[in-house]
Amino acid sequence: MKEFFKLAICQMKVVDEKRMNINRAVSMIEDAAQNKADLIVLPEMFNCPYDINKFKEYAEKREDSKTLKAISNISKGFGVHIIAGSIPELDNGKIYNSSFAFNNGKIVGLCRKIHLFDIDIPDKITFKESEVLTAGNQITVLDTKLCKIGLSICYDMRFPELLRIMALKGAQIIVIPGAFNMTTGPAHWETLIRARAIDNQIYVAAASPARNNELSYVAYGNSMIVNPWGTILARANEKEDIIYADINLKEVKKVREELPVLKNRRNNIYEIIEK
Amino acid sequence: MKEFFKLAICQMKVVDEKRMNINRAVSMIEDAAQNKADLIVLPEMFNCPYDINKFKEYAEKREDSKTLKAISNISKGFGVHIIAGSIPELDNGKIYNSSFAFNNGKIVGLCRKIHLFDIDIPDKITFKESEVLTAGNQITVLDTKLCKIGLSICYDMRFPELLRIMALKGAQIIVIPGAFNMTTGPAHWETLIRARAIDNQIYVAAASPARNNELSYVAYGNSMIVNPWGTILARANEKEDIIYADINLKEVKKVREELPVLKNRRNNIYEIIEK
Repeated sequence: MKEFFKLAICQMKVVDEKRMNINRAVSMIEDAAQNKADLIVLPEMFNCPYDINKFKEYAEKREDSKTLKAISNISKGFGVHIIAGSIPELDNGKIYNSSFAFNNGKIVGLCRKIHLFDIDIPDKITFKESEVLTAGNQITVLDTKLCKIGLSICYDMRFPELLRIMALKGAQIIVIPGAFNMTTGPAHWETLIRARAIDNQIYVAAASPARNNELSYVAYGNSMIVNPWGTILARANEKEDIIYADINLKEVKKVREELPVLKNRRNNIYEIIEK
Repeated sequence: MKEFFKLAICQMKVVDEKRMNINRAVSMIEDAAQNKADLIVLPEMFNCPYDINKFKEYAEKREDSKTLKAISNISKGFGVHIIAGSIPELDNGKIYNSSFAFNNGKIVGLCRKIHLFDIDIPDKITFKESEVLTAGNQITVLDTKLCKIGLSICYDMRFPELLRIMALKGAQIIVIPGAFNMTTGPAHWETLIRARAIDNQIYVAAASPARNNELSYVAYGNSMIVNPWGTILARANEKEDIIYADINLKEVKKVREELPVLKNRRNNIYEIIEK
């Protein structure tokens, strides 16, 4: 475990051309690694427009994925940890919204989005992931060389139960590739990210694609890194950018000593269980 | 049940004189009732400075409490529902941080603070409720003539498990008398209140005392009423004031249909249980 390390979020602009997305992701990871980032995070659906009509066309199998191969190679070159946002993953005829974690060329973790995003706000936003995607069933906390990383995807962050379980399982950072939209983004994105950090007294890194008005689903952007006190350490605007923050795991311990929220939970009155 | 009603928060300035606090509470309730409020909320420890050295001196037994008698009388006079913030309640030699709910002169509910607030941030704020107070053990959802009201007190709001259980038990509003301080208030108050509303798609009404720099513990103020989408409907500043909002219970249903978060919970992966 490293007590201090540098985290980067690549808020890349996703376009409707897979090869361009892969190249862009690799190039932004190179930049971040050259700037001494130890942990580099890509956004949700970084190789594919966030569009239920595109997921099938862009989906790749783990064993012959061009996208994962490219990320694996770059992670090997720099020795960094990468949370490769997410991609549409094809497995046994089903498509998942899947985040792969890499270190030194190897896949060291996988999180398939547990909660599929179905929204229908008349005249504003309608989107039904469940028409095309299959939900994952595993809660993911990775034990990496850097620290314990909880991994969840976008809509998953709306479920405090899930993130609490990750914290109780020892996560010190929760990484959330996510693509809120122009309705839910301004209304909820910052508040939920900061609340999850405050509730669990952990770092939270939420990675959005940059805003691209040419796509059917326009991401809010505003990727951010929040510390265990809920303070925003780094925040992007709507444009393509890499943001950085220094992570100090002592902060997790310090905040939990000063305000012992996790210790003060009343397990004799309520309990959250993982099944 | 009423689908539409008016909620008022009396952000009163608590002083170190019980009789003055009781009179002030009664007078603010009168104002709110005359302004057609149906549900009137007082802040945490409205009859007593929020100070562990004062709780014993100010504590009252339910059966001969001057404070509760006064609130009972005024609730009878106007027929309104009142959540009487909280008071130090003496019972069997123990002191609780207790919120009593009234309608038409009668006590219709009681919530004793479940999580005692112990904080120790060097050079900023140190406070240990657990030295003097005893914790409650009951989750409170009141079935009133207006609607189902979840009731919790201040530090309780830092535990998403508790508020989730209230929502699952049918609460449409969660009322939180609370006194965050000048460290935790600016850092966490608004974010937590809004996140609880967004997570559970319910109204949240959080009632703080007004700021009084003459007391040992200075409350943040900023009482607020938030709707099920997380929008702040009314907000006080640091001064004594009554804030109002129109509650429309159809909003709870509408938001839950548009973004079915509660329905999308994955009970086969995690579960919150009340013991």
